[in-house]
Amino acid sequence: METQLDLLTKECVSYTKNGNVADYIPELSKADPGMLGAYMIAEDGSEFFSGDYMQPFTIQSIVKTILLLQALIDNGVEAVSEKVGMEATGKPFDAINVTEQKLDSRHLNPMVNMGAILMCTLIAGNTYEERFSRVLELTRILSGNPTIDIERKVYLSEKTYGSKNRALAYLLKANGMLADDVEEVLDCYFQACSISVTCKDLANIGVVLANRGRRPGGDEFIVPEEYARYVNATLITCGMYDGSGEFALRVGVPAKSGVGGGIMAIAPARMGIGIFSPALDEKGNSVAGIQLLEKISRQFKLSIF
Amino acid sequence: METQLDLLTKECVSYTKNGNVADYIPELSKADPGMLGAYMIAEDGSEFFSGDYMQPFTIQSIVKTILLLQALIDNGVEAVSEKVGMEATGKPFDAINVTEQKLDSRHLNPMVNMGAILMCTLIAGNTYEERFSRVLELTRILSGNPTIDIERKVYLSEKTYGSKNRALAYLLKANGMLADDVEEVLDCYFQACSISVTCKDLANIGVVLANRGRRPGGDEFIVPEEYARYVNATLITCGMYDGSGEFALRVGVPAKSGVGGGIMAIAPARMGIGIFSPALDEKGNSVAGIQLLEKISRQFKLSIF
Amino acid sequence: METQLDLLTKECVSYTKNGNVADYIPELSKADPGMLGAYMIAEDGSEFFSGDYMQPFTIQSIVKTILLLQALIDNGVEAVSEKVGMEATGKPFDAINVTEQKLDSRHLNPMVNMGAILMCTLIAGNTYEERFSRVLELTRILSGNPTIDIERKVYLSEKTYGSKNRALAYLLKANGMLADDVEEVLDCYFQACSISVTCKDLANIGVVLANRGRRPGGDEFIVPEEYARYVNATLITCGMYDGSGEFALRVGVPAKSGVGGGIMAIAPARMGIGIFSPALDEKGNSVAGIQLLEKISRQFKLSIF
Amino acid sequence: METQLDLLTKECVSYTKNGNVADYIPELSKADPGMLGAYMIAEDGSEFFSGDYMQPFTIQSIVKTILLLQALIDNGVEAVSEKVGMEATGKPFDAINVTEQKLDSRHLNPMVNMGAILMCTLIAGNTYEERFSRVLELTRILSGNPTIDIERKVYLSEKTYGSKNRALAYLLKANGMLADDVEEVLDCYFQACSISVTCKDLANIGVVLANRGRRPGGDEFIVPEEYARYVNATLITCGMYDGSGEFALRVGVPAKSGVGGGIMAIAPARMGIGIFSPALDEKGNSVAGIQLLEKISRQFKLSIF
Repeated sequence: METQLDLLTKECVSYTKNGNVADYIPELSKADPGMLGAYMIAEDGSEFFSGDYMQPFTIQSIVKTILLLQALIDNGVEAVSEKVGMEATGKPFDAINVTEQKLDSRHLNPMVNMGAILMCTLIAGNTYEERFSRVLELTRILSGNPTIDIERKVYLSEKTYGSKNRALAYLLKANGMLADDVEEVLDCYFQACSISVTCKDLANIGVVLANRGRRPGGDEFIVPEEYARYVNATLITCGMYDGSGEFALRVGVPAKSGVGGGIMAIAPARMGIGIFSPALDEKGNSVAGIQLLEKISRQFKLSIF
Repeated sequence: METQLDLLTKECVSYTKNGNVADYIPELSKADPGMLGAYMIAEDGSEFFSGDYMQPFTIQSIVKTILLLQALIDNGVEAVSEKVGMEATGKPFDAINVTEQKLDSRHLNPMVNMGAILMCTLIAGNTYEERFSRVLELTRILSGNPTIDIERKVYLSEKTYGSKNRALAYLLKANGMLADDVEEVLDCYFQACSISVTCKDLANIGVVLANRGRRPGGDEFIVPEEYARYVNATLITCGMYDGSGEFALRVGVPAKSGVGGGIMAIAPARMGIGIFSPALDEKGNSVAGIQLLEKISRQFKLSIF
Repeated sequence: METQLDLLTKECVSYTKNGNVADYIPELSKADPGMLGAYMIAEDGSEFFSGDYMQPFTIQSIVKTILLLQALIDNGVEAVSEKVGMEATGKPFDAINVTEQKLDSRHLNPMVNMGAILMCTLIAGNTYEERFSRVLELTRILSGNPTIDIERKVYLSEKTYGSKNRALAYLLKANGMLADDVEEVLDCYFQACSISVTCKDLANIGVVLANRGRRPGGDEFIVPEEYARYVNATLITCGMYDGSGEFALRVGVPAKSGVGGGIMAIAPARMGIGIFSPALDEKGNSVAGIQLLEKISRQFKLSIF
Repeated sequence: METQLDLLTKECVSYTKNGNVADYIPELSKADPGMLGAYMIAEDGSEFFSGDYMQPFTIQSIVKTILLLQALIDNGVEAVSEKVGMEATGKPFDAINVTEQKLDSRHLNPMVNMGAILMCTLIAGNTYEERFSRVLELTRILSGNPTIDIERKVYLSEKTYGSKNRALAYLLKANGMLADDVEEVLDCYFQACSISVTCKDLANIGVVLANRGRRPGGDEFIVPEEYARYVNATLITCGMYDGSGEFALRVGVPAKSGVGGGIMAIAPARMGIGIFSPALDEKGNSVAGIQLLEKISRQFKLSIF
């Protein structure tokens, strides 16, 4: 299996030329666009990796899955779904979900920025620093990697160049949906996006979600099954932004991308996959990453459809 | 299992009071809002049914899955996906997919009216009467029911009150996306929507899609596996209109609803399910039908997430 | 004054190179893009003309002012304003005024196609042929030219290539705002748009509106003062489509353009002006025509601001 | 004339019951909803007043005319119109002018919040405090009232509850249209909105604009004629928000409203009018104020159409 993954990875490296590294914050633009790495962890615990799988990168939007999990843990399904809807928006990641009518929870999705920012306010904690600590801790637990931490330079860069997210947060506030201080909420969000991970970390988180809340071979639920399924279902309709429909056709598993170049894919009852390749397409998804996932899905028959 | 299905059906009948029968065409408004029926066909060929499963009704939007299949059979994946996109629109079933930019294929989805109308033009045939005949024939083959035919009164009612669909078709034409005569194309579409089916027919079609193109126990592919998966993947993001996200969370399988009160659900590698209950929610989906599918999904652990 | 107008016209001819003749219907694309003509009729009855003022062309959207006048004559201000709103849409001439809420009269404007099509249904007459006859008759009376008639080739071309307008009319019908047969209503609209006029005709109509309903020097009201003011006020906010704001700044008088290359400008209490120059800008307004009107307005201090 | 104005004012007082005092910031909600006052200053210098004309109130959006004038004085017509467009948006006062394409100057209007905020950045000054000082000074000069100052409580209330404006400013920043610190720019904007005026002040400013830049009877231009006309033309298409079209029909003169209950109306070459009545309609315009202006316009034949 390792040989197959190596082969597929090599076949896909050339696709890195078809994308561009994110440049909306200066720090991200320093990534090496030619990199491609993958890490697979199956339900039986077997692991496979290839390419630049050891390269750390910031989790970015993939953390939206952790924010959603933590919010579910702290509030339950009903309370979370009342505050943030679950319909596909059919819009880009930083979509301004404005409507002619008053904005409400139905216009939000936890995998699109406005909804993810709101998710931060649903996480328990006396301060936003404490809320972030709990997000970081959950990330460490899910990945089984207690050394995970934020990449401070990226965090500061996000904070400095975060005008769009500030606009989104103030829109939430103007619509009476966000009571707390915008800068504090965003600080939690920016820190969460700046968590540094590797392909292995994403694969470890992914396999827990694939295994509906349990570690491979484990019986104990790290997160309740219902919440794992909630995340997986949300991802299939909205995890790859306005490329989610095409991804469902080509790859056929729940997945979440980040502008740092990562993709976390979840093949239910099969495996978790972490991908890294920072050259992005127009929608903000890793070009070579999607190519590689498509080949992996076909090779190992992962599509749930 | 039959007893269980009966029990679940009885539990859900009261939900029919929470919806209303479609009234956008007079003929549909004559349906009995209190009805609820279900038919399940498993991959091993076993069949289960309950309630008003014998009641015929018009297929309506569920035929979009057949139109897509026929278009795929006649043109292949690449040609179809070039003409009609696959992203969730986040909009109602009869959404006018207008944009500030020129309308193109990416704004369409085969499960939303504009895309489905365009699908008719992709089906092979010298006339639109011939194209419809092929759609009807495919419906008969997939369901294994050679007696299936259109409900003429509904067809005429659709044709008479089809202003919204005419508007959508003329918008396609105005954008250079529909070359043929609008009334001929719509005649094919209206006839297709007026095909009369029962829960059993939908279950039979559904189980072929669940079995990726083969009848239960059969080896022969009625439709190519790739096309069956294409339909299933499209349904999960857009089959229940702007209720698709919630349906993915609550039920967790690809499904397509119609304003006639039908739902066809596809549990991959497990079963096909046909539901009938004409009282609809605001989004045009069967209220009691979704409730029943949620219970069935939990009882038989059908969710793919 | 004649010499001045000649001079200004000559200065502006070169601007015809900055635009393109309308090509959305084949017949219009045959116009000579280099033409520029003007005709001014002052309140004292004096007349001035220059360039290609004798060239006939189709009235196109300028007829929306006549449709509005006839609808006002037949129904009064209150009934008309209840059916079709008067707010600037901020959108192009053929804007699809869709909204997330149900379309209503407030989304329409008599100077944008959807509103103008609806205006046809407000004109009195047993048949749409009769309604059009009354529009034609009013055009003849306002212009004082009983020989005005439609340009049959343009009418047939409009009818053949009218998909966008058909879409707009069916949207009105689907929203319960248009009860009659769409093709009959559109036939009236297409004929109205195909009325052939010259700069002199437009100047004659314009001066009646400038003179609040009376011919220069005349005491008799051809149209009630209130209706003339209604048209003038509507034009200033929406007569030049999404170029109305800029036109108000640069020229400063109510005006209506047509894709046939005509502009009718109304300098209240001063004069009516007819312009012809078929090379259009992106918004569908005559490029050299606007330039010439700007110069005329400055020279003769016509701005109402 | 005074008697007539008194009479008209009394006739309109009852309309105050049809509106509500602004409550988006607490401080504004303290206004007495039953008040109605008017002040007219004609080109010959004669003055007329009635009702609660002595009541001070905050200028709110009416200051957008001063911001535009100051920006024009500091940059000229070309530079200002390049940065902020002049088309009617057809949207409410606090419209989020988002588009599917990248936001640009054409989507803005100086009379809608986003454009007005941007206008602050075009005013000359080393600091935003200095910029505001120049706006205040221009207000004093135009009104001939050197005692005009800000209402500090309203300013602080605006600053505290300004989430929507913060969102708009950050959207401008995110689109690269606003380089400076958002809070500094908004501080200038909030102060400008909080300038306290009376009907007489508005009438004095209005008559200068009506007189194209000169005080009644004066020859000296306080502001260049071209800039006064620019403001007047902008107001007619967008001064009363999405009620501008109806206002043009009913009243027929350029005017600007503020949520403080003020309206400044400009009858070119005739008079300036200041109105105060804080009960607002749904669009944020003074209900009784518009009624009174309609009656004044009819009585004194002020309509420019």
